[in-house]
Amino acid sequence: KLWQLNYQEAAIFLQEGSDNDKFKTHPRSHEALPAYEVAHNHWFHLLDLVASISIMLLAVCERPAIDFFSLPVGVHGSLELLCLLLLSLELFIRYKWLGLHTFLRHKRTMVKVGMLFLMVTESIIVLVRQTNHFRVTRALRPVFLIHSHYCKGMRRIARQILLSLPPILDMIILLLFFMLIFSILGFYLFSPIPQDPYFKTIQDSFINLFILLTTANYPDVMMPAYAVSRFYAFFFIIYLSLELYFLMNLLLAVVYDTFSNLEKSKLRSLFLHKREACSHAFRLLVTTKNNQKLSLRHFVGMMHFFDPRKSRRDCYLMFKSLNISCSGGLSMEEFFAIYDVAGLQWSLKDDNDRLWSSNFRHPCNKIFKAIHWFVTWRYFDYFVYVTIAGNFVWILQETIRISVKAIDVVSYDFTASWISIVFVCLYSVESMLKILGRGPKDYFTHGWDVFDFLVTVVSVIGVFGELFDDSFYFILVLRPFRLLRLFKIKRRYRDVLGTLFVLFQRLMSLIIVIVLVYYFFAIIGMEIFLGKDLRNCCKNTSVEDFYKYDNTSTQTGFYYLNNFDNLLVSGVTLFELTVVNNWFIIMGGYAKAVSEWTRIYFMLFYIVMMVVMNIVVAFVLESFMFRIQYRRQMAVEDIEADHGTQKVEVTLNEEELNMCKSQSAPLTGTYIAQQSQTKYLFRGERSRNREDFSLRMYHDEVRVWAEEFNTTRMKTVES
Amino acid sequence: KLWQLNYQEAAIFLQEGSDNDKFKTHPRSHEALPAYEVAHNHWFHLLDLVASISIMLLAVCERPAIDFFSLPVGVHGSLELLCLLLLSLELFIRYKWLGLHTFLRHKRTMVKVGMLFLMVTESIIVLVRQTNHFRVTRALRPVFLIHSHYCKGMRRIARQILLSLPPILDMIILLLFFMLIFSILGFYLFSPIPQDPYFKTIQDSFINLFILLTTANYPDVMMPAYAVSRFYAFFFIIYLSLELYFLMNLLLAVVYDTFSNLEKSKLRSLFLHKREACSHAFRLLVTTKNNQKLSLRHFVGMMHFFDPRKSRRDCYLMFKSLNISCSGGLSMEEFFAIYDVAGLQWSLKDDNDRLWSSNFRHPCNKIFKAIHWFVTWRYFDYFVYVTIAGNFVWILQETIRISVKAIDVVSYDFTASWISIVFVCLYSVESMLKILGRGPKDYFTHGWDVFDFLVTVVSVIGVFGELFDDSFYFILVLRPFRLLRLFKIKRRYRDVLGTLFVLFQRLMSLIIVIVLVYYFFAIIGMEIFLGKDLRNCCKNTSVEDFYKYDNTSTQTGFYYLNNFDNLLVSGVTLFELTVVNNWFIIMGGYAKAVSEWTRIYFMLFYIVMMVVMNIVVAFVLESFMFRIQYRRQMAVEDIEADHGTQKVEVTLNEEELNMCKSQSAPLTGTYIAQQSQTKYLFRGERSRNREDFSLRMYHDEVRVWAEEFNTTRMKTVES
Ligand code: NA
Ligand code: NA
Repeated sequence: KLWQLNYQEAAIFLQEGSDNDKFKTHPRSHEALPAYEVAHNHWFHLLDLVASISIMLLAVCERPAIDFFSLPVGVHGSLELLCLLLLSLELFIRYKWLGLHTFLRHKRTMVKVGMLFLMVTESIIVLVRQTNHFRVTRALRPVFLIHSHYCKGMRRIARQILLSLPPILDMIILLLFFMLIFSILGFYLFSPIPQDPYFKTIQDSFINLFILLTTANYPDVMMPAYAVSRFYAFFFIIYLSLELYFLMNLLLAVVYDTFSNLEKSKLRSLFLHKREACSHAFRLLVTTKNNQKLSLRHFVGMMHFFDPRKSRRDCYLMFKSLNISCSGGLSMEEFFAIYDVAGLQWSLKDDNDRLWSSNFRHPCNKIFKAIHWFVTWRYFDYFVYVTIAGNFVWILQETIRISVKAIDVVSYDFTASWISIVFVCLYSVESMLKILGRGPKDYFTHGWDVFDFLVTVVSVIGVFGELFDDSFYFILVLRPFRLLRLFKIKRRYRDVLGTLFVLFQRLMSLIIVIVLVYYFFAIIGMEIFLGKDLRNCCKNTSVEDFYKYDNTSTQTGFYYLNNFDNLLVSGVTLFELTVVNNWFIIMGGYAKAVSEWTRIYFMLFYIVMMVVMNIVVAFVLESFMFRIQYRRQMAVEDIEADHGTQKVEVTLNEEELNMCKSQSAPLTGTYIAQQSQTKYLFRGERSRNREDFSLRMYHDEVRVWAEEFNTTRMKTVES
Repeated sequence: KLWQLNYQEAAIFLQEGSDNDKFKTHPRSHEALPAYEVAHNHWFHLLDLVASISIMLLAVCERPAIDFFSLPVGVHGSLELLCLLLLSLELFIRYKWLGLHTFLRHKRTMVKVGMLFLMVTESIIVLVRQTNHFRVTRALRPVFLIHSHYCKGMRRIARQILLSLPPILDMIILLLFFMLIFSILGFYLFSPIPQDPYFKTIQDSFINLFILLTTANYPDVMMPAYAVSRFYAFFFIIYLSLELYFLMNLLLAVVYDTFSNLEKSKLRSLFLHKREACSHAFRLLVTTKNNQKLSLRHFVGMMHFFDPRKSRRDCYLMFKSLNISCSGGLSMEEFFAIYDVAGLQWSLKDDNDRLWSSNFRHPCNKIFKAIHWFVTWRYFDYFVYVTIAGNFVWILQETIRISVKAIDVVSYDFTASWISIVFVCLYSVESMLKILGRGPKDYFTHGWDVFDFLVTVVSVIGVFGELFDDSFYFILVLRPFRLLRLFKIKRRYRDVLGTLFVLFQRLMSLIIVIVLVYYFFAIIGMEIFLGKDLRNCCKNTSVEDFYKYDNTSTQTGFYYLNNFDNLLVSGVTLFELTVVNNWFIIMGGYAKAVSEWTRIYFMLFYIVMMVVMNIVVAFVLESFMFRIQYRRQMAVEDIEADHGTQKVEVTLNEEELNMCKSQSAPLTGTYIAQQSQTKYLFRGERSRNREDFSLRMYHDEVRVWAEEFNTTRMKTVES
């Protein structure tokens, strides 16, 4: 019974090592344990996540709401209060888990307490008054999502953005300093020119040079001065060369350097944190008379708490794979590798290597084996690629013919030509053959095959759609995507498109962080520009034509559509501001229609998105460089094929297997020490992630970190 | 006498190692030697450079010429022929040096022969006909400049651009493929919309999505579809996310990776080439009976040919600094370091450390010593920074006041306020004190001090200009640059602005390559668009307003100024196309006014400049990352201060010094082996360049390269 508590606490330490939770939040007493268990419960985390997402989605129902989703104030106010109460529950559980002292000193928690108090107060005020007021605090709702358990990747990126801010702010200060100097220069040089509207005041000068940094008003900003003297071009050439081509590229360099160092220092701290967790857990699992070796019984006992899904056999296989010295008991050094083997999926080796159709009835197994040979025949692939290329050429020539003859796309009947049906049939047969020949599991676990299957399914839907309803021609436009398969051939394209798929999971966190930044600015934008209609606004200004609106289509500028009427439209407007190009026209429209001070909102959003986009570039750059560097240093041809999966093989003899199968048999590591005849080969597999690749590539530095950790641990033990 | 030939040939090998000339162009016979000497003569190189620059500058005098520089056809045709004959002379000398066989197999030379033949033929035709014809071959003139001796840096960058092209072309093909798919999609989706002009044909669709890749027509290209359905925004968001934010960033990653690898492989090949040169030279300088040691006499004999400016003492100091084993004779391993010491400037140590005013007459030396203490006193610097900050605040408030009161800048009298004169006096006194206290040599060899001096001199000119002529107010606008001194304080700004100064020399080669690319496209543009006036062109098109021209200033769009009327105006137009923003308006103007096919010229220029600009970003990124990496790995605080200069100290005794001074004394290395009492300390100094820093930082890899070289050399010796 006493050991159960040790097992549980050791498992908690290992979980904290895996989750990168600080050990000072480790439960210190029996009263804290139930709260700890609730706080780390899967369903509790899910409830917290749902509450934080729900409170963010309320922006769709609040003023200004999307028409279909609009709700009365009482309803969305009550829903907001409910979500806030659910989020408060998480804080209450955390308070019970941590105790008052630790709770009050956890900075992030106190920020959340303050925000919840403020938002609950505001929510009650809205309900009591039954009306909305100016509420920019809604923009802070993403903090709840970032705080939730499943958003660790987002927290990491948010922290990396925050830690990147000091060097970036240095560079922005340098940029703005140069901009101020050039603003003073430009004001003195160009303000005497009568037809130059860009440098009339020091304010105009600074704003237009700020916009020029984004290139958005070039060469227009130069033309009036250029008309007076061609030599004035040098002012703009020097400004752009210095600010845009030198300092902005240096800003990228600073961000990339900071980003790369944060990546490596994060890797180091995670590595050392896991070692410390193993160190704590190990000391809880060893006996006082043998405190150098961890027995199998205690290991399996702890694993029941750490990962209840693991079977007794899986735990034994893990133990045996960790026990490199074959001593029957794990040393601390061996125990440090537990995280590497914890995720392995174990199976008898024979199961993996046979065809899925091997145990089919004769003559089906022969037929399926022939299909397998056929679909893995290299000329089959060549035939498929020739078919895809032919399809591309045919789609292109058909589109050119439609374009040249000015045929109406809506009324055109694509099924009149039998070629499209032939191509779709060929792709369907190809997919079917591959599924039958290689097996559904093998087929649907490869990204490229899944892509092929989806494209084929969409194409089949498109052809049937054309057969039954002429106006359903939209599906046809998805067919050209099928041609991406051509790019599997070349190695560099495999690298590039492989980077796309490998980046996707890490990019998702980054994309969601960008969405949260958009949410923050969208809420503020909706509050500031509430009810402002830009149709036919800004008379007698340079942006007048862009906002012109009347029923004749040739006169409409359409820019009145770039507004903050609801959350989704605000998102599109912010995306347009992120792409930057004509951002100053959107900014100019609101500056003229609302107030010149709204320029601060747009310039601030530009600066924030410039930082975030530099981090996107650093992210893509660093991920690509890491793949290339890893491939060279580890001398591999294809990262995914060669190193993407970690494989561990362990052989068991009869006695070991019986011990694993029988729950009543005593657990012992003695069979490991005996090098008796083995018979059953088990293979453990798991996908490697970025951290695994990094630890492999930086193995020299990792050894230094391990030695540092041992030295520190020795000093701690002595004191 | 026989040894003289060995000395000369050894020096030629060392020179070829330094210049990175292939050894197969090494002079093989006595007849080739005079031609080799002419081909490597400083004045001959200068003549070749002047000829290649002159033939390029003829574009200013040819049609369409800059008004002031216009020349008759006979004159500029004759000048062209003269330059071409001078350039042919270089080929004749090279033929005499290399012999027919090697001459015909040198690819770059044969390209130049073909070009010269073509251009001479064209030049004679122009002279005979006394008129200009369509001559795009003028665009190839930069090849002569790149080919010349002093443009090694440009050749290197041009080669790096060419070697970067295959991976870049792969990425561009991928970009264009995605663009084609989206073009087909966009055509099917948006061509039915009546008020959407952007996707009417497959051609319009591709062109507008190409422009969208540059962001230049966003969100305009989206607005008509967005007006029909808000969901059409997703087409543009997905396209931009994929092409602009993912693939273009991957293109940068590919360029950066290729660029970095070319840098390192270039370093390796230069390192091994220099070793091979030393190996060849060493074998020519040793005697048959002692072929392991190189004597001082033969070393000094060779140095007379390799670097005639070196004195006998300098050669001895080099020899002694190379002779690490103190054996009196250089081994081949020791001889490999000759390039490191060849550039050292030797001087007696005592000369360096004393104040420049130490040997002034009393009491001047006391006064100057006090001034030196005062200018190196930390609070003196603080006072200077406070003065600069105060000056900045004052300039800013004065500019704001002028702007707010709408005062005419031209007629404003700045000297009415005594503060500007006080600031200029303070800066003048500061500069004078620093020159007097630290010495002119010390002051004018620091980049920041030179910058301060220039800013102060310009400010003094400005104040005097204001005193004598009111309308000469332009000088005043240079004063804000003085404020850059403030950024010396912070470390990161020292890094950033230090990168600016350190990059400058390498950036110059890159900038000149960009200028040559501009020249190439400017000539083609001037030939294609000769005589086209865009004033009031393009009626009833979307670009009509931009080209409107009349006397009332409010209606003028000024874009007619973005033309190809002469070389310099073409350069400005190409710079505007490089900045990209409204490039499609310039392209649209010429497409409507001349031909739709001219879009190929503009799209090709965009692709070329996109490649070049990615190399600029890779260049800045890599230089900055190299500095940061060097600083961390070598554990230095400031690269320039700590490692910027290589310092070598050698001590000589009385006998050694007498041997160096007396031309008649026999040269012997025996004093080196004797560790007798030494008295005179000499210091050799030289500035380290990027190659030196790289070899220091990659010293582990450099050791591997050296071992590879020794292994290869052993095999060569055995065979
Ligand atoms: Na733009
Ligand atoms: Na633009």
